[in-house]
Amino acid sequence: MEQRVSLVTLGVGDLARARAFYEALGWRTGAGPHDDVVFFQAGGAVLALWGRDQLARDSGVRDTGGWGGVTLAHNVAGPGEVDAVLEQARAAGARIAREGAPTFWGGYSGVFVDPDGHPWEVAHNPHWTLEEDGTVRLA
Amino acid sequence: MEQRVSLVTLGVGDLARARAFYEALGWRTGAGPHDDVVFFQAGGAVLALWGRDQLARDSGVRDTGGWGGVTLAHNVAGPGEVDAVLEQARAAGARIAREGAPTFWGGYSGVFVDPDGHPWEVAHNPHWTLEEDGTVRLA
Repeated sequence: MEQRVSLVTLGVGDLARARAFYEALGWRTGAGPHDDVVFFQAGGAVLALWGRDQLARDSGVRDTGGWGGVTLAHNVAGPGEVDAVLEQARAAGARIAREGAPTFWGGYSGVFVDPDGHPWEVAHNPHWTLEEDGTVRLA
Repeated sequence: MEQRVSLVTLGVGDLARARAFYEALGWRTGAGPHDDVVFFQAGGAVLALWGRDQLARDSGVRDTGGWGGVTLAHNVAGPGEVDAVLEQARAAGARIAREGAPTFWGGYSGVFVDPDGHPWEVAHNPHWTLEEDGTVRLA
């Protein structure tokens, strides 16, 4: 198994609301207005929004509701950009779970939670390399 | 907010077990034996393993246990590769939630669930472009 993630699918309760949220963050999709899955190109991978019940069935798992142990992160080039993305998320209706602040690991980050309860850490990590195209390198 | 995911963090109950599982799939990390977070370079992004309790606290969410509406996918170049990765996951101790088979969307996929309950769809999608370096393009 190669060392990569191709697609992250977020189960949602209301597809139109979830799509509108990510579009309010500036994301663009080629999905039609009646598609039941919304795909966003996300760097070299894809982020999808799909009905949570369908996703649970398709994934062969039981949905216990709530958060299930997965947090996404969006890395940016500096603390000011962290705060800017958090403000954009707040304006789009996200709950801000943690305001931007220095972190114990020597970076700066905050967390927003999307309308379906999926948390995103927005982070500046000075120990990693963030390339022009958004690629993140551990070294 | 740029259209990309930098990091996917999976909350785990037993870090050594989770790390051993991904290493058995052939993944390699630079983490030391006593690090409390294990980072894997995953294409142009990063996959992390971290204690689920710590991740919940850091993410500002309440953990309800079980699955929470996120499924990852690993795309490969053909049906044979789907089956090969599923066999590798089975041998590493994964539960196979869905054996490899043709899908309703015209591809071929199966699902394994890692030791902490995180599902991975392993998929061949003939409608998308899978580049040499693992980049997935919607068109």
